[in-house]
Amino acid sequence: MAAMTLEAGQGGGGFVSIVGAGPGPADLMTLRALDRLQRAEVVVHDRLITPEVLALIPPAALRVYVGKALGDHSVPQDGIHALLVEHARLGRRVVRLKGGDPYVFGRGGEEVQALQAAGLAFEVVPGVTAASGCSAAAGIPLTHRDLAGSCVFLPGHLADDEATHDWQALARPGQTLVFYMGVQRLAQIAQQLIAHGLAPDTPAAIVRDGTRAGQTVIATGLSALVACAPGYGPQPGLLIIGETVRLSPDFKPPPDKF
Amino acid sequence: MAAMTLEAGQGGGGFVSIVGAGPGPADLMTLRALDRLQRAEVVVHDRLITPEVLALIPPAALRVYVGKALGDHSVPQDGIHALLVEHARLGRRVVRLKGGDPYVFGRGGEEVQALQAAGLAFEVVPGVTAASGCSAAAGIPLTHRDLAGSCVFLPGHLADDEATHDWQALARPGQTLVFYMGVQRLAQIAQQLIAHGLAPDTPAAIVRDGTRAGQTVIATGLSALVACAPGYGPQPGLLIIGETVRLSPDFKPPPDKF
Repeated sequence: MAAMTLEAGQGGGGFVSIVGAGPGPADLMTLRALDRLQRAEVVVHDRLITPEVLALIPPAALRVYVGKALGDHSVPQDGIHALLVEHARLGRRVVRLKGGDPYVFGRGGEEVQALQAAGLAFEVVPGVTAASGCSAAAGIPLTHRDLAGSCVFLPGHLADDEATHDWQALARPGQTLVFYMGVQRLAQIAQQLIAHGLAPDTPAAIVRDGTRAGQTVIATGLSALVACAPGYGPQPGLLIIGETVRLSPDFKPPPDKF
Repeated sequence: MAAMTLEAGQGGGGFVSIVGAGPGPADLMTLRALDRLQRAEVVVHDRLITPEVLALIPPAALRVYVGKALGDHSVPQDGIHALLVEHARLGRRVVRLKGGDPYVFGRGGEEVQALQAAGLAFEVVPGVTAASGCSAAAGIPLTHRDLAGSCVFLPGHLADDEATHDWQALARPGQTLVFYMGVQRLAQIAQQLIAHGLAPDTPAAIVRDGTRAGQTVIATGLSALVACAPGYGPQPGLLIIGETVRLSPDFKPPPDKF
């Protein structure tokens, strides 16, 4: 595959690859992501990167953990920018490793702006975003000719602010809604959607650890899903709402009372 | 990587892998996609698969081309289902190779339903969808903390039907719209969005052959983009609309008259 690799970072200058690691399993990384990881001198990574991906970092590379569990910003975003700039200015081949895709809720855009402002060379390596990974693993198409003409990716953790989303539009059928990190706000999201006209028995799923060994999928009607929700902890999870959820082998029709 | 491969299709039974090949370059495939491709006995593929990906199919494998240029359905969807079922029933390891991600405008859901109805074993291997590939290659984040809180993927080729989309909702700022195959309908899409209140100078981009050697990006204000549109042919392209387009190095502010 030598012919496929870019000549990025050769010739002594530093170079930053902002790399999407995909949803978790190492074999759901792209070949380009693996190439960049294996040639890295410094790897700056989040909490969402799995051990099997981290195991592919060369032993000689410097690893910098910058945290980012929900609500735990071990290193603030400005600090991450400073780290990337500092190591690249030292002429190093830096990989900024992010879960999923860098440009879908990954703050990759802000990091690119920081690198541009510093006059540094960089690239963005796209990855399989969590919505694609979880949809494949849970058997929930994001679009479907008969059921969902479009799909929307939304940040779940902001959903308690009623003004954040156009709930009227989101409550319209015929689309698939994917709330990233949407599990904690499930009750608020469901309340808004139903208040704006979405049927309470609209199929909805929570996918935890999607594509990973411990994957759990709970799929039923939206109101019934909320009723089981208090049992969920603070771990991240994807919330998918729409008629295609019905196609999942894990889908269970909601009891009559919902 | 032996430990990562599934034992799919072993033991004599047929097995279908519905595989997302990503946006074009072979190294933007996942490792899992490459594994499935290299072990395939039959590969059923579309027009959007690039020669460099096709070159990775084992020489001994049977290749079946099922077309699907825009408006050219060489093999109708039912025929594709019949092909997959026929080869799997003969005990073969079948790969259904699709551009991008199988569950984002890929009709993967319908193919899975056909395989389920036939009682066949299958898996879906997610891929980097065109929106992620093009956004990385064109420098256009799909979400951004300050500019776009969400993103929407829509089918561009249906956009001439006013009833297809909730234009009022799509015209709202603060989101990124991605119209797959949206180039041909650019004028109609722009007309609807502007009629529903989107500012005519909202940044918008056409990305053709995104992530590939011949990639072209034209990025300016939406109205100005329409004015250059008649020069575009029927080849597919992605239309991206929203404030994050302004971050692309290819962005040129629209002339005053737009």
